[in-house]
Amino acid sequence: MTTEPAFIAALRTLVTSPAARGLQDDAAVLEVGTEALVLTHDIMVEGVHFLPDQDMADVAWKLVAVNMSDLAAKGAEPLGVLLGYMLANDNERFLKGLEEALQAYNVPLLGGDTVSGGPPRSFGLTAIGRATHRPVPARYGAQAGDTLWITGPVGAAMLGFEALRDRTSADSAAFRRPLPLLAEGKALAPLVTAMMDISDGLLLDCWRLATASDVSLMLDPAAIPVADPARFDECVRWGDDYQLLFTLPDGVQPPCPAYRIGQVEAENFAPLWLGDEILTPTDSLGYTHR
Amino acid sequence: MTTEPAFIAALRTLVTSPAARGLQDDAAVLEVGTEALVLTHDIMVEGVHFLPDQDMADVAWKLVAVNMSDLAAKGAEPLGVLLGYMLANDNERFLKGLEEALQAYNVPLLGGDTVSGGPPRSFGLTAIGRATHRPVPARYGAQAGDTLWITGPVGAAMLGFEALRDRTSADSAAFRRPLPLLAEGKALAPLVTAMMDISDGLLLDCWRLATASDVSLMLDPAAIPVADPARFDECVRWGDDYQLLFTLPDGVQPPCPAYRIGQVEAENFAPLWLGDEILTPTDSLGYTHR
Repeated sequence: MTTEPAFIAALRTLVTSPAARGLQDDAAVLEVGTEALVLTHDIMVEGVHFLPDQDMADVAWKLVAVNMSDLAAKGAEPLGVLLGYMLANDNERFLKGLEEALQAYNVPLLGGDTVSGGPPRSFGLTAIGRATHRPVPARYGAQAGDTLWITGPVGAAMLGFEALRDRTSADSAAFRRPLPLLAEGKALAPLVTAMMDISDGLLLDCWRLATASDVSLMLDPAAIPVADPARFDECVRWGDDYQLLFTLPDGVQPPCPAYRIGQVEAENFAPLWLGDEILTPTDSLGYTHR
Repeated sequence: MTTEPAFIAALRTLVTSPAARGLQDDAAVLEVGTEALVLTHDIMVEGVHFLPDQDMADVAWKLVAVNMSDLAAKGAEPLGVLLGYMLANDNERFLKGLEEALQAYNVPLLGGDTVSGGPPRSFGLTAIGRATHRPVPARYGAQAGDTLWITGPVGAAMLGFEALRDRTSADSAAFRRPLPLLAEGKALAPLVTAMMDISDGLLLDCWRLATASDVSLMLDPAAIPVADPARFDECVRWGDDYQLLFTLPDGVQPPCPAYRIGQVEAENFAPLWLGDEILTPTDSLGYTHR
Protein backbone atom coordinates (compact mmCIF):
# COMPACT_ATOMS: atom_id res chain seq x y z
CA MET A 1 0.00 0.00 0.00
CA THR A 2 2.58 2.55 -1.08
CA THR A 3 0.74 4.39 -3.86
CA GLU A 4 -1.51 7.39 -3.44
CA PRO A 5 -4.69 5.65 -4.73
CA ALA A 6 -4.11 2.68 -2.40
CA PHE A 7 -3.49 4.92 0.59
CA ILE A 8 -6.57 7.03 -0.08
CA ALA A 9 -8.67 3.89 -0.49
CA ALA A 10 -7.48 2.75 2.94
CA LEU A 11 -8.01 6.22 4.42
CA ARG A 12 -11.55 6.16 3.09
CA THR A 13 -12.38 3.26 5.39
CA LEU A 14 -11.81 5.63 8.34
CA VAL A 15 -14.31 8.17 7.09
CA THR A 16 -17.52 8.39 9.10
CA SER A 17 -18.75 11.91 8.34
CA PRO A 18 -20.73 12.90 5.23
CA ALA A 19 -18.81 16.21 5.41
CA ALA A 20 -15.78 14.33 4.03
CA ARG A 21 -17.72 13.49 0.86
CA GLY A 22 -15.98 10.13 0.82
CA LEU A 23 -12.60 11.88 0.26
CA GLN A 24 -13.67 12.05 -3.39
CA ASP A 25 -14.14 15.77 -3.73
CA ASP A 26 -12.01 18.91 -3.95
CA ALA A 27 -12.92 19.93 -0.43
CA ALA A 28 -14.90 18.94 2.64
CA VAL A 29 -18.27 20.58 3.24
CA LEU A 30 -19.09 20.92 6.93
CA GLU A 31 -22.42 22.24 8.15
CA VAL A 32 -21.85 24.44 11.21
CA GLY A 33 -24.73 26.43 12.61
CA THR A 34 -26.36 28.24 9.71
CA GLU A 35 -23.33 28.02 7.40
CA ALA A 36 -21.78 25.41 5.13
CA LEU A 37 -18.03 25.63 5.58
CA VAL A 38 -15.74 24.51 2.79
CA LEU A 39 -12.38 23.14 3.99
CA THR A 40 -9.36 22.14 1.94
CA HIS A 41 -5.67 21.42 2.51
CA ASP A 42 -2.98 21.22 -0.17
CA ILE A 43 0.74 20.60 0.12
CA MET A 44 3.63 21.57 -2.15
CA VAL A 45 6.87 19.60 -1.96
CA GLU A 46 10.27 20.76 -3.24
CA GLY A 47 11.30 18.70 -6.25
CA VAL A 48 7.75 17.38 -6.70
CA HIS A 49 5.52 20.46 -7.00
CA PHE A 50 8.19 23.11 -7.49
CA LEU A 51 11.78 23.27 -8.70
CA PRO A 52 14.41 23.49 -5.94
CA ASP A 53 15.74 26.78 -7.33
CA GLN A 54 12.36 28.39 -7.93
CA ASP A 55 11.58 31.85 -6.60
CA MET A 56 9.86 31.24 -3.27
CA ALA A 57 7.51 34.16 -3.92
CA ASP A 58 6.02 32.11 -6.76
CA VAL A 59 5.80 29.02 -4.56
CA ALA A 60 3.92 30.95 -1.89
CA TRP A 61 1.57 32.42 -4.48
CA LYS A 62 0.81 29.02 -5.94
CA LEU A 63 0.25 27.47 -2.51
CA VAL A 64 -2.49 30.00 -1.84
CA ALA A 65 -3.84 29.80 -5.40
CA VAL A 66 -4.28 26.02 -5.53
CA ASN A 67 -6.24 26.06 -2.29
CA MET A 68 -8.36 28.99 -3.51
CA SER A 69 -9.05 26.93 -6.64
CA ASP A 70 -10.55 24.17 -4.47
CA LEU A 71 -12.83 26.78 -2.90
CA ALA A 72 -13.70 28.08 -6.38
CA ALA A 73 -14.82 24.60 -7.40
CA LYS A 74 -17.34 24.75 -4.54
CA GLY A 75 -18.52 28.28 -5.32
CA ALA A 76 -17.15 29.28 -1.91
CA GLU A 77 -15.88 32.62 -0.61
CA PRO A 78 -12.57 32.42 1.27
CA LEU A 79 -12.68 33.17 5.01
CA GLY A 80 -9.04 32.53 5.87
CA VAL A 81 -5.97 30.33 5.62
CA LEU A 82 -3.62 28.49 7.99
CA LEU A 83 0.00 28.12 6.86
CA GLY A 84 2.33 25.19 7.54
CA TYR A 85 5.81 26.57 6.91
CA MET A 86 9.32 25.12 6.86
CA LEU A 87 12.06 27.63 7.65
CA ALA A 88 15.02 28.22 5.33
CA ASN A 89 17.18 31.07 4.08
CA ASP A 90 14.69 32.51 1.61
CA ASN A 91 11.86 33.39 3.98
CA GLU A 92 11.60 36.98 2.72
CA ARG A 93 10.68 35.92 -0.80
CA PHE A 94 8.09 33.47 0.49
CA LEU A 95 6.51 36.18 2.63
CA LYS A 96 6.43 38.53 -0.36
CA GLY A 97 4.51 36.06 -2.52
CA LEU A 98 2.24 35.13 0.36
CA GLU A 99 1.34 38.77 0.92
CA GLU A 100 0.61 39.28 -2.77
CA ALA A 101 -1.69 36.26 -2.95
CA LEU A 102 -3.55 37.07 0.26
CA GLN A 103 -4.17 40.60 -0.97
CA ALA A 104 -5.16 39.48 -4.47
CA TYR A 105 -7.87 37.18 -3.09
CA ASN A 106 -8.68 39.29 -0.04
CA VAL A 107 -8.20 36.36 2.30
CA PRO A 108 -6.82 36.76 5.83
CA LEU A 109 -3.98 34.74 7.34
CA LEU A 110 -5.38 33.12 10.50
CA GLY A 111 -2.51 31.06 11.89
CA GLY A 112 -0.55 27.88 11.32
CA ASP A 113 2.74 26.34 12.34
CA THR A 114 6.40 26.97 11.61
CA VAL A 115 8.98 24.20 11.79
CA SER A 116 12.52 23.41 10.73
CA GLY A 117 12.97 20.56 8.28
CA GLY A 118 13.98 19.48 4.80
CA PRO A 119 15.44 19.47 2.27
CA PRO A 120 13.23 18.66 0.60
CA ARG A 121 11.06 21.37 2.08
CA SER A 122 7.31 21.14 2.03
CA PHE A 123 4.60 23.70 2.63
CA GLY A 124 0.98 23.15 3.52
CA LEU A 125 -1.97 25.47 3.43
CA THR A 126 -5.45 24.99 4.78
CA ALA A 127 -8.17 27.21 3.35
CA ILE A 128 -11.53 27.80 4.97
CA GLY A 129 -14.42 29.18 2.98
CA ARG A 130 -18.16 29.59 3.20
CA ALA A 131 -20.49 28.24 0.56
CA THR A 132 -22.47 30.85 -1.35
CA HIS A 133 -24.99 28.38 -2.75
CA ARG A 134 -26.69 25.19 -1.55
CA PRO A 135 -26.43 22.45 -2.45
CA VAL A 136 -22.67 22.95 -2.62
CA PRO A 137 -21.38 21.71 -6.01
CA ALA A 138 -19.66 18.33 -6.02
CA ARG A 139 -17.88 16.01 -8.41
CA TYR A 140 -20.96 13.83 -8.36
CA GLY A 141 -24.26 15.04 -9.73
CA ALA A 142 -23.69 15.00 -13.49
CA GLN A 143 -26.75 13.64 -15.30
CA ALA A 144 -27.24 11.98 -18.64
CA GLY A 145 -28.13 14.69 -21.14
CA ASP A 146 -25.99 17.37 -19.44
CA THR A 147 -23.34 19.25 -21.37
CA LEU A 148 -19.66 19.26 -20.29
CA TRP A 149 -17.64 22.49 -20.11
CA ILE A 150 -14.25 23.88 -19.23
CA THR A 151 -13.40 27.51 -18.43
CA GLY A 152 -10.18 27.69 -20.48
CA PRO A 153 -7.34 25.86 -22.19
CA VAL A 154 -5.23 23.13 -20.62
CA GLY A 155 -1.50 22.68 -21.17
CA ALA A 156 -0.47 26.26 -20.40
CA ALA A 157 1.06 25.22 -17.08
CA MET A 158 3.04 22.48 -18.85
CA LEU A 159 4.54 25.00 -21.27
CA GLY A 160 5.25 27.36 -18.37
CA PHE A 161 6.97 24.60 -16.41
CA GLU A 162 9.18 23.73 -19.37
CA ALA A 163 10.13 27.38 -19.91
CA LEU A 164 11.13 27.66 -16.27
CA ARG A 165 12.99 24.35 -16.17
CA ASP A 166 14.84 24.96 -19.44
CA ARG A 167 15.40 28.69 -18.79
CA THR A 168 13.94 29.70 -22.14
CA SER A 169 12.42 33.08 -22.92
CA ALA A 170 8.87 31.70 -23.08
CA ASP A 171 6.38 32.90 -20.47
CA SER A 172 6.27 30.68 -17.38
CA ALA A 173 3.55 32.56 -15.50
CA ALA A 174 0.87 29.91 -16.08
CA PHE A 175 2.96 27.45 -14.06
CA ARG A 176 4.33 29.90 -11.50
CA ARG A 177 1.28 32.03 -10.82
CA PRO A 178 -1.97 30.16 -11.52
CA LEU A 179 -5.16 32.17 -11.18
CA PRO A 180 -7.94 30.51 -9.18
CA LEU A 181 -11.37 31.18 -10.64
CA LEU A 182 -13.24 32.28 -7.52
CA ALA A 183 -15.66 34.64 -9.26
CA GLU A 184 -16.40 32.10 -11.97
CA GLY A 185 -16.99 29.34 -9.41
CA LYS A 186 -19.41 31.52 -7.48
CA ALA A 187 -21.33 32.43 -10.64
CA LEU A 188 -21.46 28.81 -11.77
CA ALA A 189 -22.43 27.22 -8.43
CA PRO A 190 -26.22 27.80 -8.76
CA LEU A 191 -26.28 26.38 -12.29
CA VAL A 192 -23.99 23.34 -12.42
CA THR A 193 -24.94 19.74 -11.79
CA ALA A 194 -21.28 18.84 -11.02
CA MET A 195 -18.09 20.88 -10.79
CA MET A 196 -14.40 20.44 -9.91
CA ASP A 197 -11.11 22.16 -10.59
CA ILE A 198 -8.60 20.52 -12.91
CA SER A 199 -5.46 20.04 -10.87
CA ASP A 200 -4.14 16.65 -11.99
CA GLY A 201 -4.87 16.71 -15.74
CA LEU A 202 -8.06 17.07 -17.76
CA LEU A 203 -8.50 13.39 -18.60
CA LEU A 204 -7.83 12.13 -15.07
CA ASP A 205 -10.18 14.71 -13.58
CA CYS A 206 -12.85 13.87 -16.20
CA TRP A 207 -12.47 10.25 -15.16
CA ARG A 208 -13.01 11.24 -11.53
CA LEU A 209 -16.09 13.31 -12.30
CA ALA A 210 -17.54 10.50 -14.41
CA THR A 211 -17.00 7.78 -11.82
CA ALA A 212 -18.20 9.98 -8.93
CA SER A 213 -21.37 10.71 -10.91
CA ASP A 214 -21.88 7.17 -12.28
CA VAL A 215 -22.11 8.46 -15.83
CA SER A 216 -20.09 8.30 -19.02
CA LEU A 217 -18.38 11.44 -20.32
CA MET A 218 -18.08 11.73 -24.10
CA LEU A 219 -15.27 14.20 -24.88
CA ASP A 220 -15.04 15.83 -28.29
CA PRO A 221 -11.29 16.10 -28.95
CA ALA A 222 -11.76 18.86 -31.52
CA ALA A 223 -13.55 21.01 -28.95
CA ILE A 224 -10.98 20.80 -26.15
CA PRO A 225 -8.94 24.03 -25.95
CA VAL A 226 -5.23 23.29 -25.56
CA ALA A 227 -2.24 25.61 -25.24
CA ASP A 228 -0.29 23.73 -27.92
CA PRO A 229 -2.36 21.74 -30.48
CA ALA A 230 0.78 19.92 -31.65
CA ARG A 231 1.04 18.40 -28.19
CA PHE A 232 -2.62 17.63 -27.60
CA ASP A 233 -2.02 14.31 -25.82
CA GLU A 234 0.28 15.94 -23.28
CA CYS A 235 -1.87 19.02 -22.76
CA VAL A 236 -4.90 16.94 -21.77
CA ARG A 237 -2.83 14.92 -19.29
CA TRP A 238 -0.67 17.56 -17.61
CA GLY A 239 -2.05 19.15 -14.45
CA ASP A 240 -1.68 22.49 -12.72
CA ASP A 241 -3.95 24.55 -14.97
CA TYR A 242 -6.74 25.07 -12.40
CA GLN A 243 -9.50 25.55 -14.92
CA LEU A 244 -13.00 24.64 -13.75
CA LEU A 245 -14.64 21.55 -15.26
CA PHE A 246 -18.43 21.44 -14.96
CA THR A 247 -21.66 20.03 -16.29
CA LEU A 248 -24.83 21.98 -17.07
CA PRO A 249 -28.35 20.84 -17.83
CA ASP A 250 -28.98 20.80 -21.57
CA GLY A 251 -29.79 24.30 -22.81
CA VAL A 252 -28.30 26.18 -19.86
CA GLN A 253 -25.54 28.58 -20.88
CA PRO A 254 -22.55 29.28 -18.59
CA PRO A 255 -22.44 32.78 -17.01
CA CYS A 256 -18.70 33.10 -17.73
CA PRO A 257 -16.41 32.38 -20.70
CA ALA A 258 -16.25 28.60 -21.21
CA TYR A 259 -15.77 25.92 -23.86
CA ARG A 260 -18.22 23.11 -24.40
CA ILE A 261 -16.03 20.00 -24.66
CA GLY A 262 -18.45 17.11 -24.52
CA GLN A 263 -21.62 15.62 -23.18
CA VAL A 264 -22.83 13.35 -20.42
CA GLU A 265 -24.43 10.02 -21.20
CA ALA A 266 -25.88 7.32 -19.02
CA GLU A 267 -23.16 5.00 -17.76
CA ASN A 268 -22.17 2.77 -20.68
CA PHE A 269 -19.21 0.50 -21.42
CA ALA A 270 -16.72 2.96 -19.96
CA PRO A 271 -16.72 6.16 -17.86
CA LEU A 272 -14.61 8.14 -20.31
CA TRP A 273 -14.47 8.45 -24.08
CA LEU A 274 -12.25 10.70 -26.18
CA GLY A 275 -14.05 10.72 -29.52
CA ASP A 276 -14.59 7.04 -30.26
CA GLU A 277 -11.70 5.89 -28.07
CA ILE A 278 -12.27 4.43 -24.60
CA LEU A 279 -9.81 5.74 -22.02
CA THR A 280 -8.82 3.83 -18.90
CA PRO A 281 -6.58 4.74 -15.94
CA THR A 282 -3.86 2.51 -17.39
CA ASP A 283 -3.57 5.07 -20.21
CA SER A 284 -1.91 7.40 -17.67
CA LEU A 285 -4.65 10.01 -17.71
CA GLY A 286 -2.86 12.46 -15.45
CA TYR A 287 -0.74 12.99 -12.39
CA THR A 288 -0.76 10.77 -9.30
CA HIS A 289 1.90 10.50 -6.60
CA ARG A 290 3.74 7.20 -6.54
CA MET B 1 15.45 36.26 9.18
CA THR B 2 16.08 32.53 9.49
CA THR B 3 14.79 31.82 13.01
CA GLU B 4 11.25 30.94 13.97
CA PRO B 5 10.68 34.04 16.16
CA ALA B 6 11.97 36.34 13.39
CA PHE B 7 9.81 34.66 10.76
CA ILE B 8 6.69 34.82 12.90
CA ALA B 9 7.36 38.48 13.65
CA ALA B 10 7.51 39.14 9.90
CA LEU B 11 4.42 36.99 9.29
CA ARG B 12 2.58 39.02 11.91
CA THR B 13 2.88 42.12 9.72
CA LEU B 14 0.63 40.36 7.17
CA VAL B 15 -2.13 39.75 9.71
CA THR B 16 -5.24 41.83 9.19
CA SER B 17 -7.96 39.77 10.88
CA PRO B 18 -8.64 39.76 14.65
CA ALA B 19 -9.45 36.05 14.19
CA ALA B 20 -5.68 35.44 13.97
CA ARG B 21 -5.22 36.81 17.49
CA GLY B 22 -1.94 38.34 16.35
CA LEU B 23 -0.52 34.82 15.75
CA GLN B 24 0.14 34.77 19.49
CA ASP B 25 -2.35 32.14 20.54
CA ASP B 26 -2.75 28.36 20.34
CA ALA B 27 -5.41 28.68 17.66
CA ALA B 28 -7.36 31.11 15.54
CA VAL B 29 -10.90 32.00 16.58
CA LEU B 30 -13.14 32.79 13.64
CA GLU B 31 -16.69 34.00 14.05
CA VAL B 32 -18.89 32.40 11.38
CA GLY B 33 -22.64 32.86 11.55
CA THR B 34 -23.69 32.02 15.10
CA GLU B 35 -20.58 29.98 15.95
CA ALA B 36 -17.01 30.71 17.00
CA LEU B 37 -14.78 28.30 15.11
CA VAL B 38 -11.41 27.33 16.55
CA LEU B 39 -8.77 26.51 13.91
CA THR B 40 -5.29 25.13 14.41
CA HIS B 41 -2.57 23.49 12.30
CA ASP B 42 0.45 21.60 13.64
CA ILE B 43 3.23 19.83 11.79
CA MET B 44 5.50 16.96 12.82
CA VAL B 45 8.84 16.52 11.06
CA GLU B 46 10.94 13.34 11.03
CA GLY B 47 14.11 13.86 13.03
CA VAL B 48 12.69 16.98 14.69
CA HIS B 49 9.40 15.91 16.29
CA PHE B 50 9.79 12.16 16.02
CA LEU B 51 12.60 9.64 15.71
CA PRO B 52 13.15 8.27 12.19
CA ASP B 53 12.59 4.69 13.41
CA GLN B 54 9.54 5.44 15.53
CA ASP B 55 6.34 3.44 15.16
CA MET B 56 4.23 5.48 12.73
CA ALA B 57 1.09 4.57 14.69
CA ASP B 58 2.47 6.65 17.57
CA VAL B 59 3.36 9.50 15.20
CA ALA B 60 -0.18 9.57 13.84
CA TRP B 61 -1.66 9.47 17.35
CA LYS B 62 0.52 12.36 18.46
CA LEU B 63 -0.26 14.42 15.35
CA VAL B 64 -3.96 14.25 16.23
CA ALA B 65 -3.34 14.69 19.96
CA VAL B 66 -1.25 17.88 19.71
CA ASN B 67 -3.90 19.53 17.57
CA MET B 68 -6.66 18.39 19.94
CA SER B 69 -4.61 19.94 22.75
CA ASP B 70 -4.79 23.32 21.00
CA LEU B 71 -8.57 22.94 20.86
CA ALA B 72 -8.58 21.94 24.55
CA ALA B 73 -6.78 25.18 25.41
CA LYS B 74 -9.73 27.03 23.87
CA GLY B 75 -12.38 24.92 25.55
CA ALA B 76 -13.44 23.81 22.07
CA GLU B 77 -15.16 20.65 20.87
CA PRO B 78 -13.53 19.05 17.80
CA LEU B 79 -15.56 19.08 14.56
CA GLY B 80 -13.03 17.46 12.25
CA VAL B 81 -9.51 17.23 10.91
CA LEU B 82 -7.73 17.56 7.57
CA LEU B 83 -4.59 15.46 7.08
CA GLY B 84 -1.46 16.40 5.12
CA TYR B 85 0.29 13.08 4.49
CA MET B 86 3.58 12.03 2.92
CA LEU B 87 3.58 8.53 1.47
CA ALA B 88 6.14 5.89 2.48
CA ASN B 89 6.35 2.18 3.16
CA ASP B 90 4.76 2.22 6.61
CA ASN B 91 1.37 3.64 5.71
CA GLU B 92 -0.53 0.84 7.50
CA ARG B 93 0.92 1.71 10.89
CA PHE B 94 0.16 5.39 10.38
CA LEU B 95 -3.44 4.57 9.48
CA LYS B 96 -3.76 2.35 12.56
CA GLY B 97 -2.67 5.13 14.92
CA LEU B 98 -4.78 7.68 13.08
CA GLU B 99 -7.85 5.51 13.46
CA GLU B 100 -7.19 5.00 17.18
CA ALA B 101 -6.81 8.74 17.82
CA LEU B 102 -9.87 9.73 15.77
CA GLN B 103 -11.97 7.19 17.65
CA ALA B 104 -10.55 8.16 21.04
CA TYR B 105 -11.52 11.80 20.54
CA ASN B 106 -14.60 11.13 18.43
CA VAL B 107 -13.40 13.45 15.70
CA PRO B 108 -14.11 12.82 12.00
CA LEU B 109 -11.55 12.85 9.21
CA LEU B 110 -12.77 15.43 6.68
CA GLY B 111 -10.10 15.48 3.99
CA GLY B 112 -6.59 16.65 3.24
CA ASP B 113 -3.82 15.96 0.78
CA THR B 114 -1.45 13.09 0.06
CA VAL B 115 1.95 13.67 -1.54
CA SER B 116 5.26 11.96 -2.09
CA GLY B 117 8.31 13.53 -0.50
CA GLY B 118 11.07 13.26 2.06
CA PRO B 119 13.05 11.99 3.78
CA PRO B 120 12.69 13.72 6.05
CA ARG B 121 8.97 13.16 6.00
CA SER B 122 6.60 15.65 7.50
CA PHE B 123 2.94 15.41 8.42
CA GLY B 124 0.47 18.21 8.99
CA LEU B 125 -2.92 18.21 10.58
CA THR B 126 -5.54 20.93 10.69
CA ALA B 127 -8.15 20.68 13.40
CA ILE B 128 -11.46 22.53 13.37
CA GLY B 129 -13.49 22.93 16.53
CA ARG B 130 -16.37 24.95 17.88
CA ALA B 131 -16.06 27.03 21.01
CA THR B 132 -18.26 25.95 23.92
CA HIS B 133 -17.89 29.21 25.84
CA ARG B 134 -17.54 32.90 24.96
CA PRO B 135 -15.30 34.72 25.29
CA VAL B 136 -13.00 31.99 24.00
CA PRO B 137 -10.00 31.63 26.38
CA ALA B 138 -6.76 33.22 25.22
CA ARG B 139 -3.16 33.56 26.35
CA TYR B 140 -3.95 37.14 27.21
CA GLY B 141 -6.39 38.04 29.95
CA ALA B 142 -4.48 37.14 33.13
CA GLN B 143 -5.00 39.82 35.80
CA ALA B 144 -2.97 40.91 38.80
CA GLY B 145 -4.26 38.97 41.79
CA ASP B 146 -5.12 35.84 39.77
CA THR B 147 -3.72 32.45 40.72
CA LEU B 148 -1.65 30.35 38.27
CA TRP B 149 -2.34 26.63 37.76
CA ILE B 150 -1.23 23.60 35.80
CA THR B 151 -3.21 20.39 35.23
CA GLY B 152 -0.33 17.96 35.87
CA PRO B 153 3.40 17.37 35.99
CA VAL B 154 5.89 18.42 33.33
CA GLY B 155 8.92 16.41 32.27
CA ALA B 156 7.11 13.12 31.68
CA ALA B 157 7.46 13.48 27.90
CA MET B 158 11.20 14.12 28.32
CA LEU B 159 11.65 10.89 30.26
CA GLY B 160 9.52 9.06 27.70
CA PHE B 161 11.60 10.43 24.83
CA GLU B 162 14.82 9.29 26.50
CA ALA B 163 13.43 5.83 27.12
CA LEU B 164 12.48 5.53 23.46
CA ARG B 165 15.76 6.95 22.15
CA ASP B 166 17.93 4.85 24.47
CA ARG B 167 15.75 1.73 24.18
CA THR B 168 15.48 1.32 27.94
CA SER B 169 12.66 -0.46 29.74
CA ALA B 170 11.17 2.78 31.10
CA ASP B 171 7.70 3.77 29.92
CA SER B 172 7.76 6.02 26.84
CA ALA B 173 4.00 6.52 26.52
CA ALA B 174 4.04 10.13 27.73
CA PHE B 175 6.18 11.04 24.72
CA ARG B 176 4.57 8.68 22.22
CA ARG B 177 0.91 9.01 23.13
CA PRO B 178 0.16 12.35 24.78
CA LEU B 179 -3.39 12.81 26.05
CA PRO B 180 -5.05 16.10 25.11
CA LEU B 181 -7.20 17.47 27.93
CA LEU B 182 -10.40 18.24 26.00
CA ALA B 183 -12.81 17.63 28.90
CA GLU B 184 -10.66 19.67 31.28
CA GLY B 185 -10.38 22.53 28.80
CA LYS B 186 -14.13 22.63 28.33
CA ALA B 187 -14.75 22.62 32.10
CA LEU B 188 -12.14 25.35 32.65
CA ALA B 189 -13.16 27.67 29.80
CA PRO B 190 -15.97 29.49 31.68
CA LEU B 191 -13.71 30.11 34.70
CA VAL B 192 -10.24 31.03 33.46
CA THR B 193 -8.91 34.52 32.76
CA ALA B 194 -6.20 33.07 30.48
CA MET B 195 -5.36 29.55 29.27
CA MET B 196 -2.94 27.76 26.93
CA ASP B 197 -1.49 24.29 26.48
CA ILE B 198 2.14 23.67 27.32
CA SER B 199 3.75 22.43 24.15
CA ASP B 200 7.19 24.06 24.17
CA GLY B 201 8.16 23.92 27.84
CA LEU B 202 6.57 25.28 31.02
CA LEU B 203 8.87 28.27 31.43
CA LEU B 204 8.68 29.38 27.79
CA ASP B 205 4.92 29.05 27.75
CA CYS B 206 4.64 30.95 31.06
CA TRP B 207 6.74 33.68 29.45
CA ARG B 208 4.33 33.79 26.53
CA LEU B 209 1.24 33.95 28.75
CA ALA B 210 2.83 36.70 30.85
CA THR B 211 3.86 38.87 27.91
CA ALA B 212 0.53 38.34 26.08
CA SER B 213 -1.29 39.43 29.25
CA ASP B 214 1.10 42.28 30.20
CA VAL B 215 1.56 40.88 33.69
CA SER B 216 4.31 39.27 35.73
CA LEU B 217 4.04 35.61 36.68
CA MET B 218 5.59 34.62 40.00
CA LEU B 219 6.27 30.86 39.94
CA ASP B 220 6.80 28.95 43.18
CA PRO B 221 9.44 26.33 42.30
CA ALA B 222 8.44 24.11 45.21
CA ALA B 223 4.87 23.93 43.92
CA ILE B 224 5.63 22.93 40.31
CA PRO B 225 4.94 19.22 39.76
CA VAL B 226 7.77 17.56 37.83
CA ALA B 227 8.23 13.98 36.66
CA ASP B 228 11.79 13.82 38.04
CA PRO B 229 12.62 16.25 40.89
CA ALA B 230 16.35 15.55 40.45
CA ARG B 231 16.09 17.10 36.97
CA PHE B 232 13.83 20.03 37.81
CA ASP B 233 15.58 22.50 35.49
CA GLU B 234 15.15 20.21 32.50
CA CYS B 235 11.58 19.22 33.33
CA VAL B 236 10.39 22.84 33.35
CA ARG B 237 12.07 23.51 29.98
CA TRP B 238 11.22 20.38 27.98
CA GLY B 239 8.05 20.49 25.92
CA ASP B 240 5.54 17.94 24.68
CA ASP B 241 3.62 17.39 27.91
CA TYR B 242 0.39 19.09 26.76
CA GLN B 243 -0.79 20.04 30.22
CA LEU B 244 -3.04 23.08 30.44
CA LEU B 245 -1.65 26.24 32.02
CA PHE B 246 -4.28 28.70 33.24
CA THR B 247 -5.08 31.57 35.55
CA LEU B 248 -8.12 31.90 37.80
CA PRO B 249 -9.49 34.84 39.76
CA ASP B 250 -8.41 34.69 43.39
CA GLY B 251 -10.65 32.31 45.33
CA VAL B 252 -11.95 30.37 42.31
CA GLN B 253 -11.12 26.66 42.48
CA PRO B 254 -10.47 24.62 39.32
CA PRO B 255 -13.17 22.09 38.34
CA CYS B 256 -10.54 19.44 37.55
CA PRO B 257 -7.36 18.14 39.21
CA ALA B 258 -4.71 20.87 39.06
CA TYR B 259 -1.69 22.25 40.87
CA ARG B 260 -1.40 25.86 41.94
CA ILE B 261 2.09 26.88 40.87
CA GLY B 262 2.18 30.63 41.33
CA GLN B 263 0.42 33.93 41.17
CA VAL B 264 -0.12 36.84 38.82
CA GLU B 265 1.16 40.30 39.70
CA ALA B 266 0.97 43.60 37.91
CA GLU B 267 3.75 43.93 35.35
CA ASN B 268 6.96 44.60 37.29
CA PHE B 269 10.65 44.43 36.43
CA ALA B 270 10.25 41.20 34.46
CA PRO B 271 7.46 39.03 33.02
CA LEU B 272 8.64 35.83 34.69
CA TRP B 273 10.05 34.95 38.09
CA LEU B 274 11.00 31.51 39.42
CA GLY B 275 11.10 32.10 43.15
CA ASP B 276 13.28 35.20 43.53
CA GLU B 277 15.09 34.62 40.22
CA ILE B 278 14.24 36.64 37.10
CA LEU B 279 14.06 34.48 33.96
CA THR B 280 14.67 35.84 30.47
CA PRO B 281 14.45 34.19 27.03
CA THR B 282 18.25 34.03 26.94
CA ASP B 283 17.98 31.45 29.74
CA SER B 284 16.67 29.01 27.12
CA LEU B 285 13.21 28.66 28.59
CA GLY B 286 12.00 26.02 26.19
CA TYR B 287 11.89 24.80 22.61
CA THR B 288 12.02 27.00 19.52
CA HIS B 289 12.95 26.00 15.98
CA ARG B 290 16.25 27.44 14.79
